[in-house]
Amino acid sequence: MRDVAIIGIGCTKFGELWNHSFRDLFVEAGVSAIEDAGIQGEEIDSLYVGNMSGGRFVEQEHIGSLIADYAGLASTLNVPATRVEAACASGGLALRQAILSVASGHDNVVVAAGAEKMTDVGMDTATDALAAAADREWEGIMGATFPGLYAMIARLHMHKYGTTSEQLAAASVKNHHNGTMNPIAQFRNEITIDTVLNSNMVADPLHMFDCSPISDGSSAVVVVAADIAHKYTDTPVYVKAATQASGTISLHDRADITTLDASVVAGQRAYKMAGMTPDDIDMVEVHDCFTIAEICAIEDLGFFKKGDGGRATEAGETAIGGRIPVNTSGGLKACGHPVGATGIKQAVEITEQLRGTAGKRQINGAEVGMTHNVGGSGGTAVVHILSRNR
Amino acid sequence: MRDVAIIGIGCTKFGELWNHSFRDLFVEAGVSAIEDAGIQGEEIDSLYVGNMSGGRFVEQEHIGSLIADYAGLASTLNVPATRVEAACASGGLALRQAILSVASGHDNVVVAAGAEKMTDVGMDTATDALAAAADREWEGIMGATFPGLYAMIARLHMHKYGTTSEQLAAASVKNHHNGTMNPIAQFRNEITIDTVLNSNMVADPLHMFDCSPISDGSSAVVVVAADIAHKYTDTPVYVKAATQASGTISLHDRADITTLDASVVAGQRAYKMAGMTPDDIDMVEVHDCFTIAEICAIEDLGFFKKGDGGRATEAGETAIGGRIPVNTSGGLKACGHPVGATGIKQAVEITEQLRGTAGKRQINGAEVGMTHNVGGSGGTAVVHILSRNR
Repeated sequence: MRDVAIIGIGCTKFGELWNHSFRDLFVEAGVSAIEDAGIQGEEIDSLYVGNMSGGRFVEQEHIGSLIADYAGLASTLNVPATRVEAACASGGLALRQAILSVASGHDNVVVAAGAEKMTDVGMDTATDALAAAADREWEGIMGATFPGLYAMIARLHMHKYGTTSEQLAAASVKNHHNGTMNPIAQFRNEITIDTVLNSNMVADPLHMFDCSPISDGSSAVVVVAADIAHKYTDTPVYVKAATQASGTISLHDRADITTLDASVVAGQRAYKMAGMTPDDIDMVEVHDCFTIAEICAIEDLGFFKKGDGGRATEAGETAIGGRIPVNTSGGLKACGHPVGATGIKQAVEITEQLRGTAGKRQINGAEVGMTHNVGGSGGTAVVHILSRNR
Repeated sequence: MRDVAIIGIGCTKFGELWNHSFRDLFVEAGVSAIEDAGIQGEEIDSLYVGNMSGGRFVEQEHIGSLIADYAGLASTLNVPATRVEAACASGGLALRQAILSVASGHDNVVVAAGAEKMTDVGMDTATDALAAAADREWEGIMGATFPGLYAMIARLHMHKYGTTSEQLAAASVKNHHNGTMNPIAQFRNEITIDTVLNSNMVADPLHMFDCSPISDGSSAVVVVAADIAHKYTDTPVYVKAATQASGTISLHDRADITTLDASVVAGQRAYKMAGMTPDDIDMVEVHDCFTIAEICAIEDLGFFKKGDGGRATEAGETAIGGRIPVNTSGGLKACGHPVGATGIKQAVEITEQLRGTAGKRQINGAEVGMTHNVGGSGGTAVVHILSRNR
């Protein structure tokens, strides 16, 4: 396996994008990444596309073909295009498959893109489509949707570790603050702890502001063999680890639902692959589909000991300028969560940070960053470690 | 890239399997393949899963996680599981990704499985779900479903090359005959040319018996590094090529709709990769979602010149014992077409033939076989060449 680098990034605005079609979003992000990389269409060896539920949200499957076609890569270049899906981790999977195809020597230049167009259907349909990330026969049919599943995780975390609603809210407040500095973010307004605690209860103890929104959006990256990266850019970002792990799809099969085994294992595999420890990571984009998910993630990835995530968040240790900045992009909460795009957007954010182009969100002296993308309630986790240094 | 071999195969019965759930099918095929290979769960490095539209057919996404979990590979082994989708080519894609992951050296033992559970919904829903393989905004919304799209291809093929309804029917009659000898086939009855011509017209000139059915089913293979194949089996089947190409997703963007560019290019790439020509292939499983699709495929893959496929089929040149046996399994027409499973089932059939275990369907002296799996009307094509010899 050979070294791989990211040389191009692109992202649409995230939000309710009613004047953009599904394919428009993909092509806009893809073309941005290709232009950023300075590559030609003829150089692209393959395309990996992350999307959770085009079938439900826009009645479209065969999404690799569609995107290759509308990006101008199908009719004469016949570029292989492969859609991958692992619910909300679909983007992370697309990135990992793109990295593996270059690392293997099979391909030299690969585009990984992710998109979801979620606002063309009503909220009931969207909620049910998202519930398809859980076990339909054991969770969905019983009425469990994702706020309910993560509410159970939050309840047990509170019971075992004394985590408070205020601590959960602190993750949301921080991510909204970071989102105010991110031009692509869906929400760019400051909120307070009271905003969260006074918002509607969705599934006790999770309020509306504990939950990531329904969003449209797309993001893309171009990965190449590290040996040719400097042909295209002076600031390649190197891939030090790309790992994936499965966990049980349902909560009821887990010994302890406050830990996502898939996150723990994908993280451990990533540290091993990179030869690093949590202390080597300068910032991390974690999968905060709910505030409790961020708390669990920063514990499961080894940044804080189990049960200490709420306290650390409330104390500002995960803010920009804190011990380990978490979700400088605004995270899923403020940036928005077009599910197929999220895993790629995380890599776009870390790449911006490592290039030093993150504007007001910039972490000074950032050298190494991590992304953490989860499918469902932890059936899949994908972790990447990216670095300025090869 | 290193050599790869198939050491295990498994397949459920194809048909209307109302007493089997979606996950049951996957696990049954997967366990069969694992037992056939004689491997342990602990040896499995990763899992690739092909499925077109679990979201529409069984309201389930996150299918890699689900299958890893129910196969016992998630809770302690945390085996990465990746679902891939390219409509009816989803199975072929899963196989190709599994092969690439071993060829790259990243993995040593990988399971590729495909499944679709299509009969739990009504025919209207199934037809609309399948139409999501075409361009929803330019074909589906205009009322075009797949019989209509392939009917247009058939009409032009008739007009340009004098292909007749009887010639199309001959493909169906042959495939039904082959299906009578295949224990997993959905339809195991002989039919005649008149059966086809007297069946209901679905989309002129395609009759019901020109069309593959709606099916449930699953199939799986185990692939390993060729260097370790003999640890497990005396009859490994070697992968000589695994290629994929995109074409335009819509018919209206093509210069000539009687040719699927994706098939042509994927075929050419496969011959080049294997260092072979069509003359080296002893039998081929092609994607006969409709009889006209089989005619186009045997031309596009270079077995007959463009326009000659109908005549050759009617003359028996593609029958068992003919010049190039096509669809000895019964094809999609008689074997059934659970769309995510089909691409893997094709490899299962070729493996049976190369092992010499195809029973009454056996091609004597078979050394090299090909599979050809198409997504939609040719937006994606995946071709594999398999051989008894390394």
